[in-house]
Amino acid sequence: MKILIELAYDGSAYHGFQVQGDKPTVQKAVGDALFSLFGQRLSVSGCSRTDSGVHARQFFCTAEGALPESFPAERLPFAVRRYLPEDIVVLSSHWVPDSFHVRYDVLYKEYEYLILNRSISDPFLVKRAYLFPYPVDEGIMNEAAACFVGTHDFSAFRASGSGTEGSVRTIKYFSAQRRGDTVAIKVAADGFLYNMVRILCGTLLDVNSGVIRMDDIPGVIASCDRSRAGATLPAHGLYLNRVVYRQPVF
Amino acid sequence: MKILIELAYDGSAYHGFQVQGDKPTVQKAVGDALFSLFGQRLSVSGCSRTDSGVHARQFFCTAEGALPESFPAERLPFAVRRYLPEDIVVLSSHWVPDSFHVRYDVLYKEYEYLILNRSISDPFLVKRAYLFPYPVDEGIMNEAAACFVGTHDFSAFRASGSGTEGSVRTIKYFSAQRRGDTVAIKVAADGFLYNMVRILCGTLLDVNSGVIRMDDIPGVIASCDRSRAGATLPAHGLYLNRVVYRQPVF
Repeated sequence: MKILIELAYDGSAYHGFQVQGDKPTVQKAVGDALFSLFGQRLSVSGCSRTDSGVHARQFFCTAEGALPESFPAERLPFAVRRYLPEDIVVLSSHWVPDSFHVRYDVLYKEYEYLILNRSISDPFLVKRAYLFPYPVDEGIMNEAAACFVGTHDFSAFRASGSGTEGSVRTIKYFSAQRRGDTVAIKVAADGFLYNMVRILCGTLLDVNSGVIRMDDIPGVIASCDRSRAGATLPAHGLYLNRVVYRQPVF
Repeated sequence: MKILIELAYDGSAYHGFQVQGDKPTVQKAVGDALFSLFGQRLSVSGCSRTDSGVHARQFFCTAEGALPESFPAERLPFAVRRYLPEDIVVLSSHWVPDSFHVRYDVLYKEYEYLILNRSISDPFLVKRAYLFPYPVDEGIMNEAAACFVGTHDFSAFRASGSGTEGSVRTIKYFSAQRRGDTVAIKVAADGFLYNMVRILCGTLLDVNSGVIRMDDIPGVIASCDRSRAGATLPAHGLYLNRVVYRQPVF
C-alpha cells in the first residue's frame, strides 16, 4: 500500500516539484516532512514535474516505504502540518493499492494561466499572475483557443531541445475568462509537453496582439516548428489546477 | 500643493504604516522611494495607521515638500515603481491643494476581515486570512453585525489602555458574506478605535460560537467594558479596503 497525498502549494520559493540536488523543491520539502513524522525516508513520486515558480491548487504525490498500515492516512494533513513550510499544504490523503500510479493513471490535468491585465501591479498577485498591460480581448483569445482543442502533434509548442517522447496530445478544453482586471486561461489535456501551457498561452496573447494571425494557427500547429508559435510566458502565472484520474481516487 | 498618492500593499512584511524607528514600515518605504525619485526628503502623511501585518487594498497618503509643480503627478505610479518593494504599489496619484488633509477629510473607511473557514490552511492565503476551522453561520453573523450599525460609544471594542480621545463612532454598514470556504466581513465607519475592527469581528465569531448571546450585544455595547466584548482577531486577516473622502479626490 502507498499513501496518496493531495497537495496545494505556492511555488514562488521552489525550484519546481522534482528534487534537484540541494535546491529547495516541493518534493524535498514533502520528503523531509514525512521523514520528520515517520522517522524513515519514504519514496515520494509526483503526478507531474512543475517548473520553478509554478503553483499548484491541486497536486498529487504518493509516498511508499515501510509504513505501518495501521497509520490512519486521512489524519496525515493534520499530523504533517507542523513539519511543512506554510506555502505547502496537505489537503487530504489516504491509502491506495500498490498498483496505483500517481503519474501514469492520470486521465487529464487542468492548468490555469493567470494574467493581470492592467497597467499597474497588484501587491496581492506578486509572483502569482503575469502583468500584461496591453488590451486583452477574451473573444479573440477564445476563438484562438478553440483552434487547439482536439488531438494534435504539439511539437511547435514544446521548449526547443526538450524530450524525445511522442508529441501528440489531446486538449479537452481551452478557454479564457475575464474577472475584473484578471484573465484566467484554463486548459485541460491528457498530457503536456515541456513548457506547452506557457507557449500555448503566449500564442493566444500573440494572436490577441496581432503578431500571429488567427488563420495561421492551423498552419503553426502543422508546422511542428517552435519558432512559429508564440512566446513562453513566465512561470509565475501558471497553476496546476486539477488532476483527474482514470478511477476515482477519493 | 501636495501629491495625493493611492497605495495598495501586502502588509505581511511591515510593522504597519507609521514610521517606528528603523523598523520596516510602509511610510518609511514610501518616503525612501520618493527620496530616491526626487532627491529630497518629502513629508509623507497617511489616512490611517494600520497595525503590523494589516493589508490595504486602498490607502491614501500625501507627500509635501519643495516639489516642482511641473511634475506630472499622474505619472508617479510608473516613475516610483522601481524604487518600491513589490509588496507596495502606487495605484494612482495627483496634485491636491494644501487645504486637503489626508486623514481629517475622510468621510468613512471600509475594512474587510477575511476568514478562511475550513480545517486546513490554504497556501495562497498564508498571512492573508484567519484560519477558523469551526462552523460559521453567516446568518447569525449578519444578525449580530446589524446590532452595531449606527452611532454608539464603542469603548468596549477598543484595545484596553489605548487612547483617550472620544469613543463615539458611527458604523454605516457591517455584514458578512460567504464565498466558498472564505467569509468576508465588511464594516464601514466614520472612524475606528484602536483594534476596533478586529474586536468587532471577534465578537461576531463569539456570537456565532455561542460564547456571547445575541440578546446581550446591546448590553455589551452599553457596558463600555472591554472584557465583555469578544477576542481581538489576528491582524493578518484585516484589509483596509476603501477610503471615501468628503469631496471626490479622483
